[in-house]
Amino acid sequence: MQSLAEKIQATLDWLSSFGADEAGGVSRFLYDKNWQAAQQGLKQKFEEAGMTASFDEVGNLFGRIEGSKYPQETIMSGSHVDTVNQGGTLDGQYGVAAAYLAISFLVETYGQPLRNLEVVSMAEEEGSRFPYVFWGSKNIWGLAERKDVEHTHDLNGVSFVEAMHQAGFDFRKSQTIRKDIKAFLEIHIEQGQILEQQQLPIGIIKNIVGQTCYTITLKGQANHAGTTPMAYRKDAVYGYAKIVTHGIEKAREVGAPLVLTFGQAEVTPNTVNVVPGQVTFSIDCRHPDGQVLKNFREELEKDMRQIAEENGLTIELDLFMDEPPVPMDREMVRVLEKACSEKGIAYQLMDSGGGHDSQIFAAFVPTAMLFVPSIDGISHNPAEATKLEDLTTGVEALISSLYKLAYQE
Amino acid sequence: MQSLAEKIQATLDWLSSFGADEAGGVSRFLYDKNWQAAQQGLKQKFEEAGMTASFDEVGNLFGRIEGSKYPQETIMSGSHVDTVNQGGTLDGQYGVAAAYLAISFLVETYGQPLRNLEVVSMAEEEGSRFPYVFWGSKNIWGLAERKDVEHTHDLNGVSFVEAMHQAGFDFRKSQTIRKDIKAFLEIHIEQGQILEQQQLPIGIIKNIVGQTCYTITLKGQANHAGTTPMAYRKDAVYGYAKIVTHGIEKAREVGAPLVLTFGQAEVTPNTVNVVPGQVTFSIDCRHPDGQVLKNFREELEKDMRQIAEENGLTIELDLFMDEPPVPMDREMVRVLEKACSEKGIAYQLMDSGGGHDSQIFAAFVPTAMLFVPSIDGISHNPAEATKLEDLTTGVEALISSLYKLAYQE
Repeated sequence: MQSLAEKIQATLDWLSSFGADEAGGVSRFLYDKNWQAAQQGLKQKFEEAGMTASFDEVGNLFGRIEGSKYPQETIMSGSHVDTVNQGGTLDGQYGVAAAYLAISFLVETYGQPLRNLEVVSMAEEEGSRFPYVFWGSKNIWGLAERKDVEHTHDLNGVSFVEAMHQAGFDFRKSQTIRKDIKAFLEIHIEQGQILEQQQLPIGIIKNIVGQTCYTITLKGQANHAGTTPMAYRKDAVYGYAKIVTHGIEKAREVGAPLVLTFGQAEVTPNTVNVVPGQVTFSIDCRHPDGQVLKNFREELEKDMRQIAEENGLTIELDLFMDEPPVPMDREMVRVLEKACSEKGIAYQLMDSGGGHDSQIFAAFVPTAMLFVPSIDGISHNPAEATKLEDLTTGVEALISSLYKLAYQE
Repeated sequence: MQSLAEKIQATLDWLSSFGADEAGGVSRFLYDKNWQAAQQGLKQKFEEAGMTASFDEVGNLFGRIEGSKYPQETIMSGSHVDTVNQGGTLDGQYGVAAAYLAISFLVETYGQPLRNLEVVSMAEEEGSRFPYVFWGSKNIWGLAERKDVEHTHDLNGVSFVEAMHQAGFDFRKSQTIRKDIKAFLEIHIEQGQILEQQQLPIGIIKNIVGQTCYTITLKGQANHAGTTPMAYRKDAVYGYAKIVTHGIEKAREVGAPLVLTFGQAEVTPNTVNVVPGQVTFSIDCRHPDGQVLKNFREELEKDMRQIAEENGLTIELDLFMDEPPVPMDREMVRVLEKACSEKGIAYQLMDSGGGHDSQIFAAFVPTAMLFVPSIDGISHNPAEATKLEDLTTGVEALISSLYKLAYQE
């Protein structure tokens, strides 16, 4: 008989074959052929494990074991089946595979649970094919709006609606929201280096961080690089560089877990011998405490305006994302801590710097997350990896947690 | 009869019609139809003014008045007839028009000169159609190499050779270099704001600055913007921003006439939610003193390497241009100063931050330059402009200078 570790490896290898690329990664996008094959394959696996498997209208896949005592109460676990372009073999699908294997293990070992146990393989989370994220979880909670996607297209010009129909799915018609879900638990790779640095196999998430994103445009005056003395310049790149150095040094002073990223920049005219007249750049700032995040971004705004003014530049700020932090359910966190402790699994409480389906669930039902370490913190990349022993410890922690939630009074 | 100012305006308006664009500027590229029409039009104008006009093999146009006493000695003045893409109505062609009008005025007023007087309308200086600069002046001095252009194409895929042949020109076959040119004098717009700030109509150039250009690649590690703590980042944009702020502040400390420009930058992967793994950027540094320029760039190199190291980044430096300053002829500068003083024309001695045909001539014959002010320093732009009274003062200074060089013993 296969060990749990062998089952995990085999399930991930099998799932990674749907959309595998030469680099060893996976590219599997909402409603495409690989996505359809993966979801159909999973449905069959769920059924083989004795689950009742079904899709909802948009393509979220559920595999269900009925509870013996509380058939109106469902403990759900899972994640998303789609990937980023040239993604790895763990982001999303590890959470689906882990929930499937954990529930299978529990039923094999302990028989029927008191409450329903459900694995969910959600349709979409990454926004990698169409400009929309959380299509799966937002449909489960009735948050996805038809108007937000019906005029979108992928890079090949295929419309969202066309892709959805070709895969055999449609917009959600039902107005009812599930009332039976009593808890949602998602396991995911960390995509960072904290657990690796701490040499711990498990993170239990306290908060999914709040996120603030800007597009900023600094305008000065394009001028000849040879004939414009330094004193007469309105150099947009200099202002940009001042803002970046000041912002990052300020973020370091505030300290972890604040993160600040200047990921994108476009210089105009972007010519060796012309003083840049304009820079458009992005800011991505995250913190698990909404007040700290708000204070920081307001101070940074003030500082940026001042740096612009001191250097003869105009500045426009477009705050295009301002999501508050999402706390995980405190009672659920305690259950997870207890589940780990009882099994002798070392863990630490931490925040999630990335967004996850759990943040959509958390507004409706008690929700929690487990993290496993990422080697070198690499993710969204074919090199994304976690040691098999850590993947196994993750599934063990999930088993222990789901046992408490579904098998105990 | 037209005044000199009216003649200047009429000549520039006429010349600007060859390649005029809707924005009020000019786009006229080596060997294109507008270029051909402009050069043929100028040839006719030169002939109407009593000059002997002729093209050399590559398309430089000369208009000549024979000297009475020293027919082996030629005083030459002019500039280039091509423009940048969407350029203005003064860069290059003002120098051609001014030389043509100055020589015409001198011959009308004082009759035949002692030495030959020649206006030159050079084929190319800007490098705006093919990736080659100074095609005109480098051919006059036998410096242009066939191999450097014969495999180049313009943006429409037309080869250099095809364009040249279609315009009726060919590579230079003659091996002889002119020995008769005794002095070259070029008048040009400043393309900067020094004269405007000083409220002076004329600049006499001491040096064309030396120029050092780098392409620099900083490499760190691309990472998730949400899950990578600040302390674990190797953020290439942060290193770049530190280098820019440090470099510009250092350049300001050294003071004018040093100029330092970070004109170009490409961020990789250039995504809002990814810590940038790489930045490739340009440096353009200029100073009229070769030793100051060398010391500054060596210090800057050292500092950049240190900033890279301190931030866990690797750095590659590609020094793709390292041109020494070109001094103008001291005796010629004195002649120009005297010519201005005698006419009561206020001037200042200054350096040219831009490159000009004169820097090619200066290695072979006594060479000097006159500048007129640029409104707001704007150039390489349809908004490029100079007050008509300044353009007129420029031609008057040129007349006075050419008189001294060609009419006096």
